[in-house]
This record gives sequence, structure tokens and C-alpha cells, in this order.
Amino acid sequence: MELQREGSVIRYQRGQVTRERDLVVTEHPVTLKINGEEFATLVCSPEYIEDMAVGYLASEGVIKEYGDIEELWVQEKEGFVHIKTSRWNPQLQKLYTQRYITSCCGTSRAGFVFFNDARTAKVMKDVHVRITFKEIFQLMDELLLRADLFQRTGGVHSAALCDTKQILLARSDIGRHNALDKIYGHSLKQGMNLEDKIIVFSGRISSEILLKVAKIGCEIVLSKSAPTALALELAEELGITTVGFIRSDSCNVYTHPHRIVECQNMGRTL
Amino acid sequence: MELQREGSVIRYQRGQVTRERDLVVTEHPVTLKINGEEFATLVCSPEYIEDMAVGYLASEGVIKEYGDIEELWVQEKEGFVHIKTSRWNPQLQKLYTQRYITSCCGTSRAGFVFFNDARTAKVMKDVHVRITFKEIFQLMDELLLRADLFQRTGGVHSAALCDTKQILLARSDIGRHNALDKIYGHSLKQGMNLEDKIIVFSGRISSEILLKVAKIGCEIVLSKSAPTALALELAEELGITTVGFIRSDSCNVYTHPHRIVECQNMGRTL
Repeated sequence: MELQREGSVIRYQRGQVTRERDLVVTEHPVTLKINGEEFATLVCSPEYIEDMAVGYLASEGVIKEYGDIEELWVQEKEGFVHIKTSRWNPQLQKLYTQRYITSCCGTSRAGFVFFNDARTAKVMKDVHVRITFKEIFQLMDELLLRADLFQRTGGVHSAALCDTKQILLARSDIGRHNALDKIYGHSLKQGMNLEDKIIVFSGRISSEILLKVAKIGCEIVLSKSAPTALALELAEELGITTVGFIRSDSCNVYTHPHRIVECQNMGRTL
Repeated sequence: MELQREGSVIRYQRGQVTRERDLVVTEHPVTLKINGEEFATLVCSPEYIEDMAVGYLASEGVIKEYGDIEELWVQEKEGFVHIKTSRWNPQLQKLYTQRYITSCCGTSRAGFVFFNDARTAKVMKDVHVRITFKEIFQLMDELLLRADLFQRTGGVHSAALCDTKQILLARSDIGRHNALDKIYGHSLKQGMNLEDKIIVFSGRISSEILLKVAKIGCEIVLSKSAPTALALELAEELGITTVGFIRSDSCNVYTHPHRIVECQNMGRTL
């Protein structure tokens, strides 16, 4: 299926009105049906749909591993993914998707919005990977270079799974979360070890993006853009190193700086 | 409640590592409860929360007008909005939020993803407002000027309700849709006439944004960014004029150009 479509446009430029042809990015609705029942509809760029479904199910806590899916069948054109799994419990799911309320005794995990996130997000206590500032800039450059193909049509989000030296897997999508779900799904299918990997992302680190990173199980997230306060609260709690506003020769480290080689002696909190 | 928060950051710039203070934008989860039952959780910038709730309920088709709300009570700090309305029917709502499937006889409306959208989006057949290119550039300039306050913390979306001469109401939010819901809710509460108004938006015109505009009931949407193919399909169907990629002296008209003064004689379709 096509990721971009050509169409007619009236262009105005410095007083001149002309008819032209222009590329527009496509959006493709995909509905996940679990055991015949509608579960969620994701609007996405129409590629790697199976990976996205697998990643989304894992990040929503429906499955724990790829083997939990007994059957998966994609109707690409119609926009359906049919999943069969005995792990699906609609009653439990209703509970999981409810708002997570901090208990008054203060033992609950801070910052969580949904019960499900508190349940599925992993805590990164160890250090499986360390990175230098130079490597950070190189990874972001590589992500932006690859994303170029899409830039003409405007505003697609790019995400990549990396080690410190290179991009291992890159995905672009019209939906912020889909790019990460596509990476997560692929990794689960391949049985990749993720704890020493790094996520590089083109967009803002919102609480939802930070939680996706925690669910995937990566210790470091790098972004061209800014984080939110809630995302940083969660990163602090979950032990994730966040780096934002990455430009050619500058960036900000917001949480857990001990995984940045040059910041090893600056402590674990800021 | 605060829209930004100051925090510590380690800054790397041209080989120098320093500790600094930096502003980070806040995210605030707000859960809407209808007649005591959890309906939806929106993560937003913590201002105009009542307006956002009203706009969201209308755009989801739960209420038709502001008077349908019998009681509304905001727990701002805790992030809850309690709504009492006799128009709420959980069984019907379940039907509305399902995937909308085009019928085989071809009479269904094209492009719709959810049943609810096909039900609540208004079709703009008439011309209640016309705009010139000069006015388009002026409105976008005004929006970006106002949004400046937020720009330092990065990546907040701005939306405004305008007539051809000026911005009447502007909202910024961390969530793309929230800014529009806040405008919609305010307009409903004030009983404003919306059919001759214009929406100006800083972000991409996705199908969801286009549908929000159609639900609010505006005939023209102006964006600094690109539209998607699905949004344009819906705009064509719903009679909405879309203008994108607005820069200081250039822009693209994608659908229904007859509401642009300089394009009146170019027909209704491209």
C-alpha cells in the first residue's frame, strides 16, 4: 500500500496562483480484533502492520511475549488484524485501562496515569549500556538522514532502535506511538535482547512515549525535541536516561546521567 | 496549576558540560466521569479544563449542546471532571465508538473511520465566509506570535477560532486535540455562532483534526503544516476548505477553493 499519494493543489506564492501536483502522506485505519471482538483502532502509515499490532498488544499488556499469539491474520487493504489468544480477558482489560489512582499511604508509583502502565512498564535498575555525547549526535544525525524520504510530505515521526554505534531498525509513521509499536513488535518476533539498546526518537518525549520506551525495555531514550514534566517524573522513577533537544553539537540530559560516559561522576539524579 | 515547571538539567554544548536550570512543559491527566462511570482520560496542559471536557463530550457525541449537561464539577488538582447528564447511554456509546465499515452498496460516507464521526460531523454545503490570501497570512502570523510564550519549552500545539480579520479565541495545549476541544467547549458555553468562523492550527491536519473542525462546524481550516490524504478525503466529502503549508508569502489550497476570494472562479473541486 502507498505511503504517499499525489494530488492536485492550488499553490499561492508571492501573488501568483497556480495549479500543481503535490505529494500527501496517507493515513490508514487498522482495527485490531481479539478473538473476534473489536479491541482498538490505530490510524497509521500503511506498512509493517503486523509488527505494529504485536507491539501494541504487548504494550497494552494483552500479551507478554510473541508466543502468546496463537493466530494472527492481517487484512491489509480493509485495515483489520485478527488475533487469537487465550491470554485475552475482557474483564481484566477493563480494569487495566482504568485511571491509576495514587493510594493515600504513598506507596504507589508516582506519575502513572493508567493502571495498565504501572503494571507493564519495566524498571531499569542496572546499566547495560553507556553512551558518549559524540555517539548521541551521530545516532540522531543518522535518524534524521533516513527520515528524509518522508520529510517532503511533512510531519511524520521517526523512531529507531540502536546500539551505541548504529541504527539497527528504523520506522517512520504518521502516528507518534505507531513507530515505536512497530519497533517493539519486530523485536518481540525476532526475540531480540533489548536491555542494552537505545531508542532514538524525532518527536517530543511525552509521558506516553516514555512509557512505551519503558515497556520495550530500553535504558536510554534520545530525542530531537523536548520532554514533558510528567515524562521526566516517570523516567526518574523507572530508571531511564532521557536526553532531549539534540542538535548538531548540543543537548540536554534530564534524568539518570550515569549512563552518559562524560557524566558518570555526576551522580544518578540531577 | 502551572503550565511549565523549572528543573535541573545537564547541558552539553561544544564540549562543555554544565548544570543548568530549564523550563519543562507540564502534562496533566484529566479523567472524565459520566454519571459516576469512567469515560475517558485526556492528558492535557492544565488550564481551561471545564471547556475541554465540554468540547470533548460534544465531539464524541455524548452531548449535543451545553444544556445537555445537568451538572459539571471539576476536581482540578486530582484531575477529575464529574458530569451528570441524562443523555448518556453506555450501550449506544459502545456502538458509536466502533469502527465504521463502508457498506457494499456504496451509500456510506467515504473516509470515515468511526461510526461516531459519521454521525456527528457536520457537512458544510454553503458559504458563510470568504477569505483572501492576505488575511490567511495575517491570521497565521497572529497565531504564531501568541504561541511564542510556550515555544521555549517546545512542541505545544496552538489553535485559534477567528473571523477573517482577527483571532477571537486562542488555546495552546500539549495535546493536539485538546486545544480544539477547549475552543469547542468555550464556544458551546457562550452559544457562539460558528459557521462563519475559521480554525487556524499550528500542527498537521490529520483525519482526527479535520473531523474536530467538522464537528465544531467551521467551513475553513488553516494550517502551518501538511494535511494527510485521509483528512483531504474527509474535507472533500464534508465541504471544508483546507489550506496548508502556510508560510509568510506562500500556501497550498487542497479542497473547496471557492471560499478563497482569489480562487472563486476555479471551481469547487481541484
